[in-house]
Order: sequence, then C-alpha cells, then structure tokens
Amino acid sequence: MEISPQKHRIDPGKAFRLNARDPSDTQGITRNKKEVRNRLKALRQRIAELQERLYAESKQSLLVVLQAMDTGGKDSTIRAVTKGINPQGTWVRNFKAPSSRELARDYLWRVHQEVPPKGYIGIFNRSHYEDVLIVRVHGWASPEVIEARYDQINDFERLLTSTGTRIVKFMLHISKDYQLSRLRRRLERPDKHWKFNPGDLEERALWYDYQEAYEVALQRTSTAAAPWYVVPAENRWYRNLLIAQTIVDTLEDMNPSFPAPDFDLAEYPPESLV
Amino acid sequence: MEISPQKHRIDPGKAFRLNARDPSDTQGITRNKKEVRNRLKALRQRIAELQERLYAESKQSLLVVLQAMDTGGKDSTIRAVTKGINPQGTWVRNFKAPSSRELARDYLWRVHQEVPPKGYIGIFNRSHYEDVLIVRVHGWASPEVIEARYDQINDFERLLTSTGTRIVKFMLHISKDYQLSRLRRRLERPDKHWKFNPGDLEERALWYDYQEAYEVALQRTSTAAAPWYVVPAENRWYRNLLIAQTIVDTLEDMNPSFPAPDFDLAEYPPESLV
Repeated sequence: MEISPQKHRIDPGKAFRLNARDPSDTQGITRNKKEVRNRLKALRQRIAELQERLYAESKQSLLVVLQAMDTGGKDSTIRAVTKGINPQGTWVRNFKAPSSRELARDYLWRVHQEVPPKGYIGIFNRSHYEDVLIVRVHGWASPEVIEARYDQINDFERLLTSTGTRIVKFMLHISKDYQLSRLRRRLERPDKHWKFNPGDLEERALWYDYQEAYEVALQRTSTAAAPWYVVPAENRWYRNLLIAQTIVDTLEDMNPSFPAPDFDLAEYPPESLV
Repeated sequence: MEISPQKHRIDPGKAFRLNARDPSDTQGITRNKKEVRNRLKALRQRIAELQERLYAESKQSLLVVLQAMDTGGKDSTIRAVTKGINPQGTWVRNFKAPSSRELARDYLWRVHQEVPPKGYIGIFNRSHYEDVLIVRVHGWASPEVIEARYDQINDFERLLTSTGTRIVKFMLHISKDYQLSRLRRRLERPDKHWKFNPGDLEERALWYDYQEAYEVALQRTSTAAAPWYVVPAENRWYRNLLIAQTIVDTLEDMNPSFPAPDFDLAEYPPESLV
C-alpha cells in the first residue's frame, strides 16, 4: 500500500498529455477497504501531528492548491484529507467569480490576501489558476495577457516559497464520461440538486479546450519549489491516499518542530506557581 | 445521557454569581467512556448533516462565541466539537491583541468583518467580549466607555440575529485551582512549553477581577436571541457534550433545508445529458 506521489508529478517544462494519463490509475494497487481506511486514518493522524508542530513553530506554512473540472471531487477531497485535523490550523479558501472590488485590482491581489498565515495549512479550492484556465478558454483576456501570466504566477509563487510557504498543487484528473455520470447523479438525487448548475453544461461543452489549457498551465508552472501533481481522481480512495501521502511527505520535509521557550524555564519551576 | 443546556443558560438581566456555579458539574451524570464517545460522535454527525443543509441553503449562518480564562479549554473544545465537520462550511476566527489598523477603528469593526458568511458555522475563539473583559480589568477604557459597550454589543448582535445569523455564546467556566494545574502542566511537558506565556501569570493574579467582569458582561449581554451559557469546563467530556448538544439544538431550531433547484428540473432529464 506504499504510494509514490513522484509518479504523478509533472516535470518542470516538460510536455505531457493529459489524455495519456489514466484517470483511474492506482499504480497497480488493488483496493482493500479495510487496509485503505486504516492507511488513510494513519496518514491523517500524521498530518494532525505535524500540523500541531507547524502551528507551535509558526515559522512556515503549507499551501495546497486544488484544481479540477466540475465534479472532479475537490470538496470531497478536502473533507477526506482534513478530517480530524484541528480547524484552527487549517485555512480553506474558495475562489469563485471575482467581485467588482477584486476585478479593480490585478488578478493576484485577492489571492495574495488569502495566503495561509505562518503555522497554517492552507487549502485553495480553485485559485489564481482559474485566470489561465476559464479565462483562457473563454478568451476573456488576450493570448499575450495569458502568456504573461504563467511567468507572473511563477514569480508570485517564488515569493511565497522563498519566504516560508511551501506549495503543492493538485489537478484532480477525471474523464469526460466520468463527469457525465456525476452530473446525472446530481439530477437524479434530490439532495444533490442544489449542486447542479445548468451553466456547468456550457463549460462541459468546452471540455477539450479546458484539457489543453490545463496541459499548458501545468507544464509552464510546475516548478521544483511548487510542483503540480496530476491526480487520477476516478478512484476516490486512491485519490485520497495519494494526496494525503504527498502532504505528509511535504510536511515531513518541512520538518516543523516545537519551538524552544522564549522565556527562561529555570525562572518558572512548576511548583513555584500559585 | 440526555443533557439539558437550559440549566446552564444565563437568564437575560438576572444577576448571578460565577462562584455559585460548580465548574465540575455534570448534572449528576456519571461518565461512561464508551457511552460518552458514542454520544459525542452521534452529535457531531448530526452537526455535520445540518451543516451540509445550512451550506446548501445559504440563507442563514450560526455564530458560536467562545470565551474563557487562559487554559479554559477553548482550543480543545473547538477540536472536539468540529471534528469530522466539513472545514469548508466552518469558519474559525481568533481574536488576539488588535493591530494598529484595527485600533484605528471602533472595536466592533474587525469583528464585523469576520462574521460567518451565510451557510457557515462560525466559531469565534475570543471575540468582541474581550473589549469588556481584559479592557475593563486593566482599565484600558473608562468605566463610562465600558458601560456603553454592553448596549453597543447588544445592538450589534441584534443586527446579526435579525439578518440571518443565529448566535450562541459559551463561557468555559473553570476554577482558579484548575487553572493552576493546567499552567503547571505546560511547564512540565516540553511539547507544551510553547503554550506557556509568563504574561499569563499576570492575568492570573487578576482572577477575581476577571470573574466580576464576566459576571457583569454575561448578565448584561445574555439575550433571548443571543444567549450565554456558563459551561462547567473541568470535566472535558461533559463540556464537549454540552456544547455539541447546544449546537445541535440550535441548528435544528434553525431548520436549514436543501433549496429547491433554481432551474426547471424538467428541462434537464438526466439521460438527455451528453
């Protein structure tokens, strides 16, 4: 049950094709329900431990970026991976259509405001990448403007990574057929109706344009300091394990530690307190 | 194992004494570990269900205010009560010493900015009540200014409750001896050193002033629409059950429901999707 995130990492600058990647890949691992449950639980527990150290240390933060086509499973991923982690050290932010106040500034302005504070694990549900995805697909900005954004994003992320924020980026990869089954499910189940938005069908019609926009964006912005992972997302158990494992690996590499007291311990023997 | 939150509720305008309330009260219930665990799990699951409806509905929000003396258990309460709830519908905010930017505005300015959006359960770890607690105890504002604040707070909370935000307020009640044991623990355990702050001893020396400030604040600001509960907090299992039960009762009373689709379902038969 050892999962290697490396296999799904995008090499900086190297061309790749999304449709050459199997969205139901499991690295040959067969699902064993009990084993999967225990493994995920252990990974979450490890995240919770490392998060407590991160919070106590308050010198670094982790930013997890989540992108996916509609129904790709962003919400359920967040729920699965963060369960049991202290919500006070977790920083989940959604980026929806920008407000007029946000549109009056550059597209990274609102994102910069929401970066996780030191000590926190931040999760972006959608992100500044929408500005090279939906914006590109719909032609809401010129090709030159979009082109400039890849470098701007790399510069922005380099600012963050060089000042204490580690970044990992996940694209939840599903097939067009899988999306169809999920959209139908939303129409079939009354408790899922609220998740269905007729506008999603218009985006679905642009599926291949989106796939291309993702390919370019991931290729241009996967860096050693802020790598992209293409997560096979049709097997949710595998998706959850892979993402949890990557977060554990990243946090272990950050190696947060409980800080030394900033006062003289000898001055405060416990029994002296009254 | 039925806990009645009412017993711990502060009646609007009625005088009460904190030291007449037992911080280890359990309403006569004896702890049965397994039963407590199952009960808390069931309450959390119920909160998670109701929270999903609240989020889907997006018309109301719940604001939980948590106040306590140092070591009162605010952090561990939040962890215990929110475990397993979707972090995307949870809105936890800490209020520490105000920044210069915040001090340049009225004391409710920063609080207003952080009220939970519709669809969310917000938790304030400390709150605007610090402005009638620590500020009063230290005399950082005149008695007249403090006096005016109780009414201002009631007006502010009435604005929120009359525009879709339900409010419940918990004061975690512990004894001075209990705090001593918790502070000593922070000095004894290396992984807790970072939580110890020598300044906490100065606040501890003002214990009785704080108790009085709490009594006045709770008496003046416990209203039918935004009630205060004095939570016996020395038995953490009881504290968790009581708070989770109160949140469940409140959410059930709010009765959030999955919204009707805002499109014509008949126009989208699932099998018509391609």
